[in-house]
Amino acid sequence: MLQSSNLRANLDRFLTTMEASAQIGIGRENGLRRLALSDADRDMRDLFVRWCQESGLKVSVDGIGNIFGRREGSENLPPVLIGSHLDTQENGGRFDGIVGVLAGLEVMRRLNDLNITTRRPIEIVDWTNEEGARFSPPMVASGCFVGDHDLDWALNIKDDGGVSIREALENIGYRGAAPVGKREIDGYFELHIEQGDELDRNNREVGVVTHGYKSHGVLVEYRGETAHTGPWPMERRRNALVAGARLLTAVDDIGWEYAKTSGKATAARLIASPNKPGILSDWAEAVCDVRHNDPEIADQMRAKMMNAVNDAATRTGCQAKVLNTWSWGGDIFDKQMINTVREAVGNLGYDSWDLPSQAGHDAYFLARHFPTAMIFTPCKDGITHHNDELATAAMMEPGLNVLLHAVLARADRP
Amino acid sequence: MLQSSNLRANLDRFLTTMEASAQIGIGRENGLRRLALSDADRDMRDLFVRWCQESGLKVSVDGIGNIFGRREGSENLPPVLIGSHLDTQENGGRFDGIVGVLAGLEVMRRLNDLNITTRRPIEIVDWTNEEGARFSPPMVASGCFVGDHDLDWALNIKDDGGVSIREALENIGYRGAAPVGKREIDGYFELHIEQGDELDRNNREVGVVTHGYKSHGVLVEYRGETAHTGPWPMERRRNALVAGARLLTAVDDIGWEYAKTSGKATAARLIASPNKPGILSDWAEAVCDVRHNDPEIADQMRAKMMNAVNDAATRTGCQAKVLNTWSWGGDIFDKQMINTVREAVGNLGYDSWDLPSQAGHDAYFLARHFPTAMIFTPCKDGITHHNDELATAAMMEPGLNVLLHAVLARADRP
Repeated sequence: MLQSSNLRANLDRFLTTMEASAQIGIGRENGLRRLALSDADRDMRDLFVRWCQESGLKVSVDGIGNIFGRREGSENLPPVLIGSHLDTQENGGRFDGIVGVLAGLEVMRRLNDLNITTRRPIEIVDWTNEEGARFSPPMVASGCFVGDHDLDWALNIKDDGGVSIREALENIGYRGAAPVGKREIDGYFELHIEQGDELDRNNREVGVVTHGYKSHGVLVEYRGETAHTGPWPMERRRNALVAGARLLTAVDDIGWEYAKTSGKATAARLIASPNKPGILSDWAEAVCDVRHNDPEIADQMRAKMMNAVNDAATRTGCQAKVLNTWSWGGDIFDKQMINTVREAVGNLGYDSWDLPSQAGHDAYFLARHFPTAMIFTPCKDGITHHNDELATAAMMEPGLNVLLHAVLARADRP
Repeated sequence: MLQSSNLRANLDRFLTTMEASAQIGIGRENGLRRLALSDADRDMRDLFVRWCQESGLKVSVDGIGNIFGRREGSENLPPVLIGSHLDTQENGGRFDGIVGVLAGLEVMRRLNDLNITTRRPIEIVDWTNEEGARFSPPMVASGCFVGDHDLDWALNIKDDGGVSIREALENIGYRGAAPVGKREIDGYFELHIEQGDELDRNNREVGVVTHGYKSHGVLVEYRGETAHTGPWPMERRRNALVAGARLLTAVDDIGWEYAKTSGKATAARLIASPNKPGILSDWAEAVCDVRHNDPEIADQMRAKMMNAVNDAATRTGCQAKVLNTWSWGGDIFDKQMINTVREAVGNLGYDSWDLPSQAGHDAYFLARHFPTAMIFTPCKDGITHHNDELATAAMMEPGLNVLLHAVLARADRP
């Protein structure tokens, strides 16, 4: 019964749940603006907790606001964990992250429908601030869960208005009592929209994520000196805004240099101060990253980016200080877990496609410590982090069923 | 008596007045942060109004907050006007603008000491928001006074927090009843620190401003599209932040191209949205300008800057929209007024130096409609718009006395 290829999720119920989420934190047309720990995020969390409780799950919230819903197994073993995130970008869609959490909920509900008790417990999780749209860096709470980030450091991260994660959690009532991590996870599954167009373009029903695009990012600060924008000679200028602009331009050039092999480089963020007409800026902060499917090429791109960080300082007479760097991706996913996903695809008879993830995910942090796999649904034209983001019911159904089968197989394995 | 070369301002009183100003809106060490229409600006205005009243001047505040203090003459003729501004940059000094207003006050006080009645009335003025540090563009209120700016347009200009000039004036009680401009001015004098190091480097006591460096500025908006910073192919990206960064880099390059002949180009401001890690920005706004002593070369630089505006859009697939352009400088000052300044310098026996102004001043707007001249005091190492800005008593005294003599000569001329 448990491994029956006839077993399917309840698509209608899943879609109704997705639609309810799409009403909370409405952004631009068809999109969502549900920034981490905002009032909209609180409303979504409240609804998610209610849904978990109505499904008989034991809800716990940890010290950085990650919400877990637990369904006990017949044996006292580490749980299988299903998760993703319910927060969005400023101009986010209805699907990114949300599909993964609510598909997990549907898995729980379907097991309840059929009175199935699995051998291992199963938990679903909504990770706090995956997007990093409000608090930088992204995926900070899964990083804390696995112990890669210091909890206190993370709680002190501030948004642009000076509000810390700690304060924001307290404001919305989600600074929970449960310890952050420090427990075993049997395996972690994350279902996500692809955020690329390979599945859609190649007309495949589901993606088996084999690895992560290698990605390297940097947060850099430039310090210069204020002066009048008019008379001050070029030779004496130390305009930190120009340092940031030169870095971003150079990073964009790196992206174009590797575009033919699908490399990408992103100038994501630049803030400066005073950043006003009439005065040169004496401070700027920039965020950029490079990504490539080939880790060696990604390393080359990273070296060029770091050279650009220093070149921009040299050219402008500013001081550069690297405040943070990060690297994601590579061969991080568990071969046995990937096989479990493949078997589920095979049992269900779907057309699948092996592909890397090009975006960052909480799964990257989980994969460093626990067996982890990701499943992708197609995503219309690859458009994401945009209100036009779209995964139709037909696009989501195969991934949802693959998740159900894979979780069951993992939870019941000997 | 009136033209006596023995006549001098009261330097000690002037310095005491400057020192009182330096206590209002204290910024970084020795500097001021007295943004236009802030509480600090209100406190300074209140004190300035009190000083004017104590000196027997008739105070009026116009509809955009310009404060006038009037000393009647023996005949009902258009007044000689002395002015500058009491607001500062975010990291401003104690001297920029302030010297000119408070020197005007000292002229009035000195005339009172000696019971001198001039033929023409004399007025002093504090122009609202000269710096543009809070409300962009700068010099907006003198532009309204002469009728070059529409008053309603100016009152609706908003700061970064969404507060309009109209609201800010009402908040601090300086939206006055007097009509804005629409009256004759016999001549306008503005004393200012040089904001360059020519006088200091050449060891001259006072500067006779012959013309303005030709300056061309642009405010440009870029519109692109949000997308994920990771998977989205370079070919499909329309990152407005990169458009802004490319413009700023190109403008800085233009500055370097003309640096040998003392040309300058400034990347002054770049804001973008969402401007966050994880998402490409779909909106950016940039401010930059070019300046050169030779108007023809300044025009070449302007043409290159405008090409850069469009190149940045083309390179990034964004739409560029020029929201505003401005041009200052050239041969704008009145020959007779300049001669009056020269004669004052001669009578007083100072070492003077002819030079252009490289910065923008309210005098530029006045000069389009009324006979106008500027006098410069030296400025230590040319440092300005910085808390280290310094004009010593010895540096200010000659300019102060030249202003006194020039104003008297103008006000009493047949």
